[in-house]
Amino acid sequence: MKNKLLPLLLLLGTISVTAQDKIIGFSEKASDEQLQLEADYEKQLSANNLDQWMKLLAAEPHWVGTEYGEKNVKWMEKQFKSWGYKTKIDTYHVLFPYPKVRVLELTAPTQYTAKLEAVPVEGDPYTAQGDKLLPSYNAFSTDGDVEAELVFVNYGVPSDYEELEKLGIDVKGKIVIAKYYGSWRGIKPKLAAEKGAIGCIIYSDPKDDGYYQGDVYPEGAYKNKTGVQRGSVMDMPLYPGDVLTPGYAATKDAKRLKREEAPTITKIPVLPISYEDAQPLLEALKGPVAPASWKGALPLTYHIGPGPAKVHLKLEFDWQLKPAHNLIATLEGDEFPDEWVIRGNHHDAWVHGASDPISGMVALMEEARVIGELAKSGKKPKRTLVYCAWDAEEPGLIGSTEWVEDHIPELKEKAVAYINTDGNSRGYLGVGGSHSLQAMVSQVAHTVTDPQKGVSVAERRKAANVIRGGDNSFTLSALGSGSDYTPFIQHTGIASLNLGYGGEGSGGEYHTIYDTYTHYTRFKDPGFDYGVALANTAGRISLRLANAEVLPFELTQWHSTIETYLGEVMKTLEDMRAEVEKHNKLVQQDAYQLTMDPKKPVAPAKLQDEVPYLDFSPIQNVVADLKKSIATFSKADVLALSGAKKAQLNQKLMGMEQALLQDKGLPRRDWFKHQIYAPGFYTGYGVKTLPGVREAIEQQEWKEAQEQIGVLATTLKHFDAQIQQLNSLVQ
Amino acid sequence: MKNKLLPLLLLLGTISVTAQDKIIGFSEKASDEQLQLEADYEKQLSANNLDQWMKLLAAEPHWVGTEYGEKNVKWMEKQFKSWGYKTKIDTYHVLFPYPKVRVLELTAPTQYTAKLEAVPVEGDPYTAQGDKLLPSYNAFSTDGDVEAELVFVNYGVPSDYEELEKLGIDVKGKIVIAKYYGSWRGIKPKLAAEKGAIGCIIYSDPKDDGYYQGDVYPEGAYKNKTGVQRGSVMDMPLYPGDVLTPGYAATKDAKRLKREEAPTITKIPVLPISYEDAQPLLEALKGPVAPASWKGALPLTYHIGPGPAKVHLKLEFDWQLKPAHNLIATLEGDEFPDEWVIRGNHHDAWVHGASDPISGMVALMEEARVIGELAKSGKKPKRTLVYCAWDAEEPGLIGSTEWVEDHIPELKEKAVAYINTDGNSRGYLGVGGSHSLQAMVSQVAHTVTDPQKGVSVAERRKAANVIRGGDNSFTLSALGSGSDYTPFIQHTGIASLNLGYGGEGSGGEYHTIYDTYTHYTRFKDPGFDYGVALANTAGRISLRLANAEVLPFELTQWHSTIETYLGEVMKTLEDMRAEVEKHNKLVQQDAYQLTMDPKKPVAPAKLQDEVPYLDFSPIQNVVADLKKSIATFSKADVLALSGAKKAQLNQKLMGMEQALLQDKGLPRRDWFKHQIYAPGFYTGYGVKTLPGVREAIEQQEWKEAQEQIGVLATTLKHFDAQIQQLNSLVQ
Repeated sequence: MKNKLLPLLLLLGTISVTAQDKIIGFSEKASDEQLQLEADYEKQLSANNLDQWMKLLAAEPHWVGTEYGEKNVKWMEKQFKSWGYKTKIDTYHVLFPYPKVRVLELTAPTQYTAKLEAVPVEGDPYTAQGDKLLPSYNAFSTDGDVEAELVFVNYGVPSDYEELEKLGIDVKGKIVIAKYYGSWRGIKPKLAAEKGAIGCIIYSDPKDDGYYQGDVYPEGAYKNKTGVQRGSVMDMPLYPGDVLTPGYAATKDAKRLKREEAPTITKIPVLPISYEDAQPLLEALKGPVAPASWKGALPLTYHIGPGPAKVHLKLEFDWQLKPAHNLIATLEGDEFPDEWVIRGNHHDAWVHGASDPISGMVALMEEARVIGELAKSGKKPKRTLVYCAWDAEEPGLIGSTEWVEDHIPELKEKAVAYINTDGNSRGYLGVGGSHSLQAMVSQVAHTVTDPQKGVSVAERRKAANVIRGGDNSFTLSALGSGSDYTPFIQHTGIASLNLGYGGEGSGGEYHTIYDTYTHYTRFKDPGFDYGVALANTAGRISLRLANAEVLPFELTQWHSTIETYLGEVMKTLEDMRAEVEKHNKLVQQDAYQLTMDPKKPVAPAKLQDEVPYLDFSPIQNVVADLKKSIATFSKADVLALSGAKKAQLNQKLMGMEQALLQDKGLPRRDWFKHQIYAPGFYTGYGVKTLPGVREAIEQQEWKEAQEQIGVLATTLKHFDAQIQQLNSLVQ
Repeated sequence: MKNKLLPLLLLLGTISVTAQDKIIGFSEKASDEQLQLEADYEKQLSANNLDQWMKLLAAEPHWVGTEYGEKNVKWMEKQFKSWGYKTKIDTYHVLFPYPKVRVLELTAPTQYTAKLEAVPVEGDPYTAQGDKLLPSYNAFSTDGDVEAELVFVNYGVPSDYEELEKLGIDVKGKIVIAKYYGSWRGIKPKLAAEKGAIGCIIYSDPKDDGYYQGDVYPEGAYKNKTGVQRGSVMDMPLYPGDVLTPGYAATKDAKRLKREEAPTITKIPVLPISYEDAQPLLEALKGPVAPASWKGALPLTYHIGPGPAKVHLKLEFDWQLKPAHNLIATLEGDEFPDEWVIRGNHHDAWVHGASDPISGMVALMEEARVIGELAKSGKKPKRTLVYCAWDAEEPGLIGSTEWVEDHIPELKEKAVAYINTDGNSRGYLGVGGSHSLQAMVSQVAHTVTDPQKGVSVAERRKAANVIRGGDNSFTLSALGSGSDYTPFIQHTGIASLNLGYGGEGSGGEYHTIYDTYTHYTRFKDPGFDYGVALANTAGRISLRLANAEVLPFELTQWHSTIETYLGEVMKTLEDMRAEVEKHNKLVQQDAYQLTMDPKKPVAPAKLQDEVPYLDFSPIQNVVADLKKSIATFSKADVLALSGAKKAQLNQKLMGMEQALLQDKGLPRRDWFKHQIYAPGFYTGYGVKTLPGVREAIEQQEWKEAQEQIGVLATTLKHFDAQIQQLNSLVQ
């Protein structure tokens, strides 16, 4: 297929990087050598290794603290050693709750006791491992024993509570039931507790990842009626990692908070359930019929309540310190051993975790193996490569966070970048990360061939953008949270990337007992073609960062991205103003009152406070200054500098992302220090760019918004000063 | 509530007509008298009458040809007589099929025999009338006995077949299953047959009017699992009325087509079923998962097929001529007995028809009663009022169509306007019709008080428009088809209106055994407040048309509406061009191929023919001319004319709408002669404005589109000539 398509694509000019082009950070000769190295690298990647290793690593459940998890780490260590890596296992001692008591009952108007168990399916022996499977629960739910009327709150996100307020429904003293999706799960109990609820149930509606989407497991890939998504509900937007050691490493003798003081454990008990268990609860609700966008795919009328359904929820956990084992494998750089390119993927899973995280883990291992083999044959990387297999990611990015917190000074000095992977699947390359790396990643993506289409993976990605009405360009998304890059980028200011393939291998197995080797090889990436593509992509990125003469940070695309974000934030304010004006006009016209159905009463609409104008000029001015400084830097012929100058320049470039931090962090969450990217306080994983300003505006904290404009301007000025230093250096 | 709101609303200037304003067509003095008459009229309207009459008329099923239907007609005749009306019963002899054999079986891969029966429900004795209830079927399905693989075709509308084509699925030789909604039901078998299908099943998905929308009957208003919507599938967009007598009356001795020749009987057998009966069929389908917008609310994965589900469908009907009894009740005008204001509502129902049509019928009766009483007390209308209760509307607007076809010359000479009602419910006033009547209707709507909110019904309607982002104005929608106005406006060119309240009394009872007095008074319009509002609204319209010194036709709003339609049609062409250009660019970029999931193959995207530019100037020029002629007419002080001149003017105005017809009709359907409004050839009830041009463009018949631009220009020129005659008269 490749040969057939290539002439057409060349004709259309859609392949913008070919093997003939010079790659960023390399002189012409070095570029040719590097591309040859990458070609050698690619040639040695073996899908069969990925397959065999997944079968082994995902053979049994291996959450943090399990015997099988430890076995996996030791086995991986052995592999890395055999490939020429120096290894160590960095262990932290972290709080991890195991469910002892899980009771959920409908106590009125009818009786039902939730089964809370997923059923083994024919043809997938992994699902029949009985007691070895981790019971379904949400880690870092508090213990609790509550009984109250039930309220259906849709996805349980802020806009849902606005809707409830309109309907005059209060969740105070109630237990809420929310659907999975619509936000990171931890937001649901957090917000419910803020609103006064005393318990929270989360279920997977078949509309989101069950029969509505496609045939259910084992016939198809989607969630059957017994499947339950496990997952952490720790308040990670406050801080991730061990709940008892905020901001510092959970070493054996670390001073720990008391569990009662830990602010990231939920305030109310929370339990995830299947749609089989949710149905009787939802059927027992009366009250207003849910709005159209709230309705799922169960065969019932979705009512909101409160009641008459009443439920009893009792949860008790065994709260123990568990050892979290991070495997750290190092291949020392030939020229710059103190410049580290760090590459990571977690190894712990909720159950078998074939897709999440093993599909990414095995790609990382294959990458490390081939690079190790190349090094053995004399093609050693110039910089040091550090391969990390993180433990305890699932309960709250714990392994990586504790490790980063344990090594901050060293990382700030030595880290070039952190490259993360996690679950992988069939489809399109998606990359999020620091936009100073966008140009380099785009070049790599134009070099890697898509296994299904024979064009570059960038071309395929761009075709999808165009089909959706977007630009014909390859860009990085911004990083929120949800995997192990968070402590690197948002806490420490290390330029980071997170990458994976997906979009054609969907299913409902996420965090259930059905995320097995059998499921993966049937529905996700049969043949591991995209696993190899991931190893190819991430490996080339690692090798370019490791071998570049001048580190491939590019600031023009970074700048235009910042400009875009600033435009978005300003538009958000304008849109809010227009929205409030429109609303107030309708209130004044009595339009809400006149269109209210008296049989479906809602609370009277109130006039809203007008949205003020904010002074964005401090940011606008520094963004304009940055444009000039960056233009100057872009024109410099950095590859022509002396070796010593290049080394100096690289030292500067390595630290650039750190200039985007503010040590005092974001308002009310000082762990998050990055001023460009953060997970949303009320979205969880979902990113908020320019978070200080954006979230203050969204929360209508006008004074704070203006203050945060100042903070961001100061940050960007600091960054501009760094660029001016670069400019002095390269003149 | 009224007193509280009024000052605010006056302040905002939202009440544009008060009792002090002069009403269109009346001098100042006459306006005051008319408003007094209308106030007297309104005062005498009795909700109790509506209630009692509905209980009686909807006590038993009464479709065309039934004993109970005839009993209803005779009882109504007695009432009209008692109110001072001259009455007659005009009977036509029309073909009407009664279902003899109805068999639907799933024959592979599993077995299921459809129950095809709705179940009586507790608390509603009407639903327990057993054999009296008309079995569920689609009238004017052909007889047939077919067995084939099943294909799910969503709503079975043209865009669905485009989607099937993309997926490479052909319905040739298959039986299709389509959901109700998305188009008038008759489009589904028509299109299926055009595509080569040999049978058609239509079912009501719970997403559209079952449990997804709200609680089901008898707990709530929506369709329970056994409910089946009956309804006609006659090809009404070709011609409505008796299938054997196209264009002429089905009198006793009329020459009739052979049944085999009747073009409006379906080409393939078609049967409606409940969602209980549909579920096993849909569960047995495999093949591609249906697109998101196709999926309903049954607890299953919606697959398209074809097969492996195989079904056997056998239908036989008893095809007999049945008497259709139209009741015509006349109150002769005092001054202009040969100027007729015609008011109609059908009386036949599929089953009990409490909502459809009795809720409208009883409002019409109460209107006629009070106007009759006013006449008895000396307040006789100036023009003749003709009240019509149509039979056989449900199977295909048969009673009204045959009557109109029987009286064309007389109607063209004497009819001022036709005002139609049908089912009525709680909520908002909706009026469709000739835009020359928009200004008058708007004035009436500003005079009628909403029973729930105390403001005018126009204010409430406008508030709803504003909430939806529309204009704060009261407008008429354009008429497509679906009730008895069709033969008047689209075949004969009589200015028409269709009005009713709704939007807050929804449910799933339409054409089922659950459309009963019990259901209606629980869920539709408890207390008949909106029934009275309908009588109030329609009665005021009738009385204004009957008593106006100068008939209240207003052409400025008519003209701006035509301009809007022209703009829409031109934009449709531009949008199609942009769409084709975009599509072709994506084909050339290979974007479809690159984003096709190889596991979900679709047919290769093809380059589409470019959309040509059409010459709209013939219409644009005449629309510009019309603007001038109408401006002149608008300035004339028509109320100051002599009585004789006014009479002449009224005679002209009565015939104006006829100038919008073309005798040769629309392409391929000469029965439909109106050049501004028509039901869509592939939407059924849904209107197409400027239909000749618009449908040619939509069907990409470019030559025909240009021809139809000429035809429309000619029509509008003819209309302009009429206005110029008016202008000569009034100078």
